[in-house]
Amino acid sequence: MKKVLVLGAGRSAYCLIHYLIEHAATYNWTVLVGDADLPALHRRFPDHARLEKFRFDVAELHHIEGTVAKADLVISMLPARFHPLVAKPCLRQGKHLLTASYISDDMKAMHEEAKKMGLIFLNEMGLDPGIDHLSALKIINELKEKGATITLFKSYTGGLIAPESDNNPWNYKFTWNPRNVVLAGQGTAQYIGDGAYKYIPYHQLFSRTEQINIEGYGAFEGYPNRDSLKYREVYGLNNIPTMLRGTLRRKGFCKSWNHFVQLGMTDDTYAMEGSESMTYKEFVNSFLPEGGSGSVEERLATFIGDRAGGEEMQKIAWLGLFSDEAIGLHNASPAQVLQQVLERKWVLEPHDKDMTVMQHVFEYTLGGQRYELTSSMVIIGEDGNSTAMAKGVGYPLAIAAKMILTGRFAQAGVLYPMMPALYEPVLAELEQMGVRFTETVKQLA
Amino acid sequence: MKKVLVLGAGRSAYCLIHYLIEHAATYNWTVLVGDADLPALHRRFPDHARLEKFRFDVAELHHIEGTVAKADLVISMLPARFHPLVAKPCLRQGKHLLTASYISDDMKAMHEEAKKMGLIFLNEMGLDPGIDHLSALKIINELKEKGATITLFKSYTGGLIAPESDNNPWNYKFTWNPRNVVLAGQGTAQYIGDGAYKYIPYHQLFSRTEQINIEGYGAFEGYPNRDSLKYREVYGLNNIPTMLRGTLRRKGFCKSWNHFVQLGMTDDTYAMEGSESMTYKEFVNSFLPEGGSGSVEERLATFIGDRAGGEEMQKIAWLGLFSDEAIGLHNASPAQVLQQVLERKWVLEPHDKDMTVMQHVFEYTLGGQRYELTSSMVIIGEDGNSTAMAKGVGYPLAIAAKMILTGRFAQAGVLYPMMPALYEPVLAELEQMGVRFTETVKQLA
Repeated sequence: MKKVLVLGAGRSAYCLIHYLIEHAATYNWTVLVGDADLPALHRRFPDHARLEKFRFDVAELHHIEGTVAKADLVISMLPARFHPLVAKPCLRQGKHLLTASYISDDMKAMHEEAKKMGLIFLNEMGLDPGIDHLSALKIINELKEKGATITLFKSYTGGLIAPESDNNPWNYKFTWNPRNVVLAGQGTAQYIGDGAYKYIPYHQLFSRTEQINIEGYGAFEGYPNRDSLKYREVYGLNNIPTMLRGTLRRKGFCKSWNHFVQLGMTDDTYAMEGSESMTYKEFVNSFLPEGGSGSVEERLATFIGDRAGGEEMQKIAWLGLFSDEAIGLHNASPAQVLQQVLERKWVLEPHDKDMTVMQHVFEYTLGGQRYELTSSMVIIGEDGNSTAMAKGVGYPLAIAAKMILTGRFAQAGVLYPMMPALYEPVLAELEQMGVRFTETVKQLA
Repeated sequence: MKKVLVLGAGRSAYCLIHYLIEHAATYNWTVLVGDADLPALHRRFPDHARLEKFRFDVAELHHIEGTVAKADLVISMLPARFHPLVAKPCLRQGKHLLTASYISDDMKAMHEEAKKMGLIFLNEMGLDPGIDHLSALKIINELKEKGATITLFKSYTGGLIAPESDNNPWNYKFTWNPRNVVLAGQGTAQYIGDGAYKYIPYHQLFSRTEQINIEGYGAFEGYPNRDSLKYREVYGLNNIPTMLRGTLRRKGFCKSWNHFVQLGMTDDTYAMEGSESMTYKEFVNSFLPEGGSGSVEERLATFIGDRAGGEEMQKIAWLGLFSDEAIGLHNASPAQVLQQVLERKWVLEPHDKDMTVMQHVFEYTLGGQRYELTSSMVIIGEDGNSTAMAKGVGYPLAIAAKMILTGRFAQAGVLYPMMPALYEPVLAELEQMGVRFTETVKQLA
């Protein structure tokens, strides 16, 4: 009997763990799940003959040898910075490892050793990164086989709120880690456009968006991710003139979010003196130029170029940012204060459904004719457990785990999920589970 | 006979060393000067009975014990990050230490030990920080003695080009470290304005300037330095409603510099792929949104909101940023590329004179009446050695060294130059040397 060890059982691990339990009898494996919050683990996953639940905290990562020793395959759902601490015992004890995170330099450095030991360290195997890679590579390889020359590839993904639960002026709720949402885009976005390197500093990012439409779901806007450059090589598109990976929000979100960026409210690099007793209104005021007359609301309206009571001002007011309530956070950074405000208002209610949206756009030339191919996928969550995010992140991992444990995938090393032997069966099974892409092709002038 | 050790003999150390040599016989001391470039040291300072020149590189800082042992007082003109490596042997061997740099946490941590040993570790004793502290404290203490309540204090300093050598469209040349000029202002400016904390993110900094006029020298503009908050306590102005320390440029500079900030050209956090063979024009293009028609010049004009051939565009074109020449720097950051361009054009010619400008503005209430006090100082350089910068940085250090070696100043510990026992005689001697402040007071409504 095989054993699968899952470390971390947060929101995005639900469908993964559920799938593993559901298929445990069929494939004769046991699922070991460790999480810091054991009561929550018990609440979310009823006892099952094939399930072992245990308390596990990242502080214990240095004593994880014994736990890893029991498993045949480890899936780390911990924050990405902890993966190397999981990977080391996997290397020492000869265990396969799956993650849904970007390959770090530390992880990459283990490639030769993993390969030599015949171990599969498969990463970027969730939704984004994950399903985006699988689905893009399928199209890229099909186009190449036909003899097409790909001239443009843009791929956008967003974790959003489903239309039926979309009832706030921001058209946004937290469906995953709020801190990551507040800090999203910091750094410099790097991609290739019209054959030239393109660099977008953070303070320009949310004003340089592209509109994306998805049939039946309306308008979105996308902004580039931090590093699209390295995927040219990974995707085998070294000389492509335009390539960009990005993030989707509902139309109008970026313009409003950009006010916070422009003001400096997303800065996480310093602690604000006296933040505990400061009010939210004073917080806003601290980013406005001094002098001038009028209320904080009026001066903010001037700063952002809206009128008092305008749409942008309404969105900001709705968040409670003009409240005279004390912030109550000691030595908080602006980003921490903003996150606290947003977490009250962008909360996912128990009956709410989330939505993940992905769209690839390709332009290519075939037989002298130019074409545009669009491939889109939307997942709508079922409930607070089987969220779109949990499905999108968990199913690819679960299916890959199954393939490895049953010997259907055996390529060793630190891997991206780019090979047909992986993406063909995973995409086929995802489609059976309702995760499917809709493709349209049109001729370009 | 006493010995003064000066580490680092770059541009801003010239007047310091010159003063020490000039006064060596009178006060019976010898000057030991170490610099990485021994030939340059010989060229700049002719042999003198009271001068010992030696080759010294920061890489040898760990073997500096023997050199420090010979001295009674050490003046570190090295980059600020090296000061703690100089301070440690000074502590071990009981030597006084002077620097013109901001007190770092590492330096501050030595306060108790220095004090216990009776050692003077006097910092921020150059121009800015330095003369600004001395002159501000003199006014602050005078106002307090009169019974005035200070409600506003703004202090601006700039290292600029003298009017007679100001012959380029930017009204700027490099009179000190070019890298620091390119990176100036990065981070978040923090100050107190109208009784409220104020935070300005870097990308807003150069559009939130204040105009400053200095009688006889015309118009300047100032932007806030990174941390003005901590000086409230240091200056004894804990409850002041407005306090700001800032940097001066010639009027119009900040608007133009801001284009580079907005584009992302001052970013030093990543290396640009292919920067070696990239042309300057391609460099500019990499920060412009893709798509759109027209030349790089035309698209830049649109981005910055100027017209082709407009004043802003002329200033940028004058720098050579539309050249088809290859950059020739391997894996360079945007800031490194920009610095290379600027170093060719903002070069201080041998006949050029520099200028340092300082202005303090105070608002205060006395006897029910509100007043504004303005105190301004301008130094014009004499030649390529006795620059305004070298005088401004070097004289305060030299005078303080003299006071310590002759026993006229003896307060131990890690110190800011805020005490009357120091600022009174230093300001008096500076005035004799032509470094003088002009004060005007006017009643406010």
